[in-house]
Amino acid sequence: MALSRNSIRFLSDKAARFVPKTGTYPKGFLVGGIHCGVKKDGKSLDLAMLSNEHSNEAVAAGVFTKNKFKAAPVQVSSRILKEKKGEGINSLIINSGNANAVTGSQGIKDANDMVTVTDSVLKNPHNSSLVMSTGVIGNNLPIDNILGGIPKLALDNLGNTHDHWIKCAEAICTTDTFPKLVSKQFEINGVTYRLAGLAKGAGMICPNMATLLGFFVTDAPVTSSALNQIVKYAVDRSFNSISVDGDMSTNDTIVAIANGAAGGEVIDNSSSSAESFVILQNEITSFAQQLAQLVVRDGEGATKFITIKVKDALSYNDGKKIASSIANSSLFKTAMYGKDANWGRILCAIGYSNVASDHSINPNKTSVSFIPSDGSEKLNLLVEGEPETVDEQRASEILQHEDLEIEVNLGTGGGQEATFWTCDLTHEYVTINGDYRS
Amino acid sequence: MALSRNSIRFLSDKAARFVPKTGTYPKGFLVGGIHCGVKKDGKSLDLAMLSNEHSNEAVAAGVFTKNKFKAAPVQVSSRILKEKKGEGINSLIINSGNANAVTGSQGIKDANDMVTVTDSVLKNPHNSSLVMSTGVIGNNLPIDNILGGIPKLALDNLGNTHDHWIKCAEAICTTDTFPKLVSKQFEINGVTYRLAGLAKGAGMICPNMATLLGFFVTDAPVTSSALNQIVKYAVDRSFNSISVDGDMSTNDTIVAIANGAAGGEVIDNSSSSAESFVILQNEITSFAQQLAQLVVRDGEGATKFITIKVKDALSYNDGKKIASSIANSSLFKTAMYGKDANWGRILCAIGYSNVASDHSINPNKTSVSFIPSDGSEKLNLLVEGEPETVDEQRASEILQHEDLEIEVNLGTGGGQEATFWTCDLTHEYVTINGDYRS
Repeated sequence: MALSRNSIRFLSDKAARFVPKTGTYPKGFLVGGIHCGVKKDGKSLDLAMLSNEHSNEAVAAGVFTKNKFKAAPVQVSSRILKEKKGEGINSLIINSGNANAVTGSQGIKDANDMVTVTDSVLKNPHNSSLVMSTGVIGNNLPIDNILGGIPKLALDNLGNTHDHWIKCAEAICTTDTFPKLVSKQFEINGVTYRLAGLAKGAGMICPNMATLLGFFVTDAPVTSSALNQIVKYAVDRSFNSISVDGDMSTNDTIVAIANGAAGGEVIDNSSSSAESFVILQNEITSFAQQLAQLVVRDGEGATKFITIKVKDALSYNDGKKIASSIANSSLFKTAMYGKDANWGRILCAIGYSNVASDHSINPNKTSVSFIPSDGSEKLNLLVEGEPETVDEQRASEILQHEDLEIEVNLGTGGGQEATFWTCDLTHEYVTINGDYRS
Repeated sequence: MALSRNSIRFLSDKAARFVPKTGTYPKGFLVGGIHCGVKKDGKSLDLAMLSNEHSNEAVAAGVFTKNKFKAAPVQVSSRILKEKKGEGINSLIINSGNANAVTGSQGIKDANDMVTVTDSVLKNPHNSSLVMSTGVIGNNLPIDNILGGIPKLALDNLGNTHDHWIKCAEAICTTDTFPKLVSKQFEINGVTYRLAGLAKGAGMICPNMATLLGFFVTDAPVTSSALNQIVKYAVDRSFNSISVDGDMSTNDTIVAIANGAAGGEVIDNSSSSAESFVILQNEITSFAQQLAQLVVRDGEGATKFITIKVKDALSYNDGKKIASSIANSSLFKTAMYGKDANWGRILCAIGYSNVASDHSINPNKTSVSFIPSDGSEKLNLLVEGEPETVDEQRASEILQHEDLEIEVNLGTGGGQEATFWTCDLTHEYVTINGDYRS
């Protein structure tokens, strides 16, 4: 039995399809999740922890929200990461149910206290932990419940089984309908390494920092500088290439931690380990994409998973801006929900995307197609600026699928490609967000 | 009886409240609307015309969509306006039901033919008319129906009564639930002038060109250069300060026409007529705001009319960017629909707005309040960065009102103010846009 008893609330169709029944997890990390008393139902898991138990000190890299109103845990974690230059970061403490955002000086004190108590219980040196929070904005944390929960979690509820990982993933969820957990193995120079990560998402997901929260860990040996470079690259192409509703939260944080527990040669970003670096970067990027896609799968109220691929852009940034513009168009998203092949809305969104140059988009070179998820032939909607006579029956068949793919070919000759993932905008999204706090 | 028989489809609560029963219209302009065979129900009005019948040639100014995919009528009208330097523009021809957008070279020919036939029937010199279209993207116009309708409309269905104006406003509607028509009088130097205008809106409304379509006319005497300057100023603070869903259409067009039929001294933008210029600019700006607000009132599926006022910004542009960011947040808009005083989402949207400088937003100086529409005391949610203990009962009372006002005070010392209008995001919006074409 893979799912813990607390998972009963997640017994949805999506939970069945997207929550793994097993996994292989990086060596040397313990994780867990408990209910400590932030969530008001008195039982849902709301406190998660990760601890590096290996004798190596771990290195870390993080990407944080660009929102001007940075939540207290974002301020505290980014400060610690900077002060420690990404080295000696051995644990994470995360609560859900309250974002500790816009909570003034008390909020900063609470976030620092979470770090201090975690370090103390885990016998870490001072400031070896990062802290994250997610949930409602503007209320102070029930800090006594959290500080009381930390020893209970650290001493009695950490482990490295699949069930521990599931509980950890559950404990960071808010409106998520299933916990998001991914693990995989890969090899570099004959040594097997593991990656595991989890995320929470659902609403308030947009480019420039998605999932509210997520972290992934590996037992590969890597310098903090190389990890930092890899994480920025990977997040750009994963968590910063997804959108649920275009909102950027005060709390968005992705952290990666590596403890080198699996051994092998240390990977850095000098030319001498170039090949290993590229392998690790590719592994982490595709892993981060897998995790980020789960966030889109669980977009609040979503019924469609939509891939937007922009080809032959002048630059990667152009392609990404255009894909993002489509992904964030409410009109496009409602059309996909309504299974309406309204490619005019796709063009509209291409046309108002804020691309760099006048040559980035040429209406007479632009083509748009649906790529069916069953592998059947693609359906052209617009070919070099001229509308096709669309077989509405065929379009309707394609749009019945849960997974949709839109391909935009800009025909600029630039040859660059960007991919973005989004979901539809549904009645259920409005229902969930019309009354989130009650 | 003010409403025409065709208005039966508009007999909603909003039509009763927002459609005027009478009006005073500028001298020398004839208008009208008929069904010519674009809309498929065989009866809804779909062709509108305005004609300057005064002996003065009229001057015009226009603001067009910045979307890279400009519809054929946008390309044709902006070319004519440029070629004629805004002078000698005596008529407008507008169809609804089909946007003539992404329609290739045939689309351009059709738009030009609409201009040519209108000029010919009205005995205008060549290229004295502007053309607009609104509706579905990507299908060629049923051009024979339109060209056949133009003489019928011009010869038998133009007039200057309130009923003619209502029909003209109806004939440009698509998913609108009521026709949008405003008229008013004002004085400059003891001479009475009139302004009348209409717009269509509903979905795909966003900053940088809203309402899809709108025009207003005056019998005041003004140079084309002065009119151009005034229209840009007014549209920036009206149609470009509203948002329904953040999408910018391929067809957005606002045109102003002045024929000077009421006499008086010609207003230009030289220092000699500075006072008259400012009066006319203020009159046109507040008039354009009134018209633009009707578009928000009729936002697709909207149940709330929301004013967002940003005070004490470093610059007008900063204030507008922040107001726009709030107005376009799906999370904010669903919270207002759900009558949820979730000010955290307002802060979030302030925080990710793309303002100019680091000093534009200071989290510790920012205050947010609800201004009740019944004139009762304002409710502070956040004061200089510190959350207030919100009286939820009181918040709930305020949020019951149809009209809501959010006041953000940035406390920068810059003293600039910007106002934005938007509506909520509702189940009905999703329903309408999930199946627009069928």
